[in-house]
Amino acid sequence: MQMGKLLGFLLLFSSLCIGFVSADWNILNQKRKNGVGSSLKNYCESWRINVELNNIRGFEVVPEECVEYIKKYMTSSQYKADSERAIEEVILYLSHCCTMKGDGKDAWIFDVDDTLLSTVPYYKKHGFGGRKLNTTSMEAWMGESKAPALEHSFKLFHEIKDRGLKIFLISSRKETLRSPTVDNLIKAGYHGWTSLVLRGLEDEFMEVQTYKSKARQHLTNQGYRIWGIIGDQWSSFEGPSSVKRTFKLPNSIYYLA
Amino acid sequence: MQMGKLLGFLLLFSSLCIGFVSADWNILNQKRKNGVGSSLKNYCESWRINVELNNIRGFEVVPEECVEYIKKYMTSSQYKADSERAIEEVILYLSHCCTMKGDGKDAWIFDVDDTLLSTVPYYKKHGFGGRKLNTTSMEAWMGESKAPALEHSFKLFHEIKDRGLKIFLISSRKETLRSPTVDNLIKAGYHGWTSLVLRGLEDEFMEVQTYKSKARQHLTNQGYRIWGIIGDQWSSFEGPSSVKRTFKLPNSIYYLA
Repeated sequence: MQMGKLLGFLLLFSSLCIGFVSADWNILNQKRKNGVGSSLKNYCESWRINVELNNIRGFEVVPEECVEYIKKYMTSSQYKADSERAIEEVILYLSHCCTMKGDGKDAWIFDVDDTLLSTVPYYKKHGFGGRKLNTTSMEAWMGESKAPALEHSFKLFHEIKDRGLKIFLISSRKETLRSPTVDNLIKAGYHGWTSLVLRGLEDEFMEVQTYKSKARQHLTNQGYRIWGIIGDQWSSFEGPSSVKRTFKLPNSIYYLA
Repeated sequence: MQMGKLLGFLLLFSSLCIGFVSADWNILNQKRKNGVGSSLKNYCESWRINVELNNIRGFEVVPEECVEYIKKYMTSSQYKADSERAIEEVILYLSHCCTMKGDGKDAWIFDVDDTLLSTVPYYKKHGFGGRKLNTTSMEAWMGESKAPALEHSFKLFHEIKDRGLKIFLISSRKETLRSPTVDNLIKAGYHGWTSLVLRGLEDEFMEVQTYKSKARQHLTNQGYRIWGIIGDQWSSFEGPSSVKRTFKLPNSIYYLA
C-alpha cells in the first residue's frame, strides 16, 4: 500500500514533469531562435534607426529580411510610446514657444498619413512595406475613408486648435482624393482645420519636399507665422522655410522623397 | 525486481525533473522581471529615440531612471551596428554623389568627439550622462589625449582622404585644447586633415550651432564645396549652410546646443 502510494505519487510527479519539460523545451527553443536571430535583429534595428536618423533615404521597400521586424515595431507598444513621447515634446514646446498675437496668423502644420491617420491597416494587408507601393491599390483604400486616427495625434490636434492656432494639413495625397480624405478625417474625429492642402496635377511632378516647401512658402506669404510642423517624413520639413520647430514621428514602412 | 526497476527509473526521472523545474523557475522568474521592467525599458527607449529624432533638445542630463539603459546601449553591439550602418550610408553616398573637380576645393567635415574619438571611457567613470557635465574634469581628461578612435569612423576618415577630399574637423572643444587634441587624434591614427577648427575665446559665447555654421560659412567663402558632414549632434548640421548631405551618428549621452 505504502509502495502503491509512492508509485502513484511518482507517476503523478513524472507526468507533471513531462508538462514542465515540454514547456521548458519550448522556452529553450525560443531562446535559441532569438539567439540565432539576434544579429538579424541588430541589423534590422540599425536599418530602422538609420531611417529615423535620415541617414537612409529614398528606400522603395523595407529590406525583405526586416519586414517581420518592422511589422512588429509598427504594431508594438514601443511605436506607440515613441509617438506619444514626440507629442509630449510638442506640448512642452507649445507651453513656452509662442507669443500669440491673436491676429489669426499663428499657424501649425500637420502631415495627414501616419501623422493624423494611420495607414498601418493597409500595410498589414499588403506586405508591410516589403512590396513596392501599388498606388492604385493604396488610393482605392484611401477612397474608402476608413483609416483610423492616431490616438496621440488626435489629442494634439485638439490641444493646438484650443490654443487658437490655425491648423494647416499639408498632405502628399492627390487633389482627386479630397472628398474621401475630408470624410475620413471627420469620421476619425478631426474638424476645424483652416485648410487641407493636397497635390494638384501640376504638383505631382515635383518631389514631395519641393511641393511641401512651396505650400509653406505660400502660407508665409499670406502672413502666417508657422510655429511648428509635425510629420512622419523628413521631406515634410526640408527645403527653405521659416518654421520655428519640427517634430518627427517614427515611420519606417515607407519613404516619401 | 520489475517493480524495483520501475521505481528506480521513476526516482531518476523525478530528480532530473527537479533540475528542469528549477531551471524553468529561473527562466519564468527572469521573464517576470523583464515584464516588470518592460514599461521602464519602453520609456527609456522612447527617450533615446526622440533624442535621435531631434524631438528632445537641450537636455542637460540623461533622466536618472534611464542612465543604466543608456549606458547599456552606448556600450552595446547595437550602438556599434547603428554607427556602422551610418558609415555604410556615407560610403554609398560617396560612390555616386560628387563630381570632383580636382581643384582641391572638394571638402568633407567631421565632428571630433563621439564621431572620430570616443568620450565613452570618460562617461563610464562619471555617471554616464546622469550627472551635469563637469567641464573642468572633462577638459582635464581631454588633456590626457587618451580618447580611443571610433573604429567605423576611422575607416571612413581614411576612405574620404583617399578619395582626394579635403578634411575639416570642426569641434566644439576649446582652442586651449589644441595641442592635446592633435596629439590624441594622431595617437588614434588620424592624420592628413586640412584644418582643425576649435572654439576661440570669442566663439565661446555663441551657441555651438552658430559657431559651427559660421565655420562652414568661412569654408564656403574660401571656395570649398562641402559634400557632406558627419557628426553625432544635430547642432553640427543646423543653421544656414550649403552642405549637400548630413549624416547623424547616434549619441544619447549628451546634447550640445
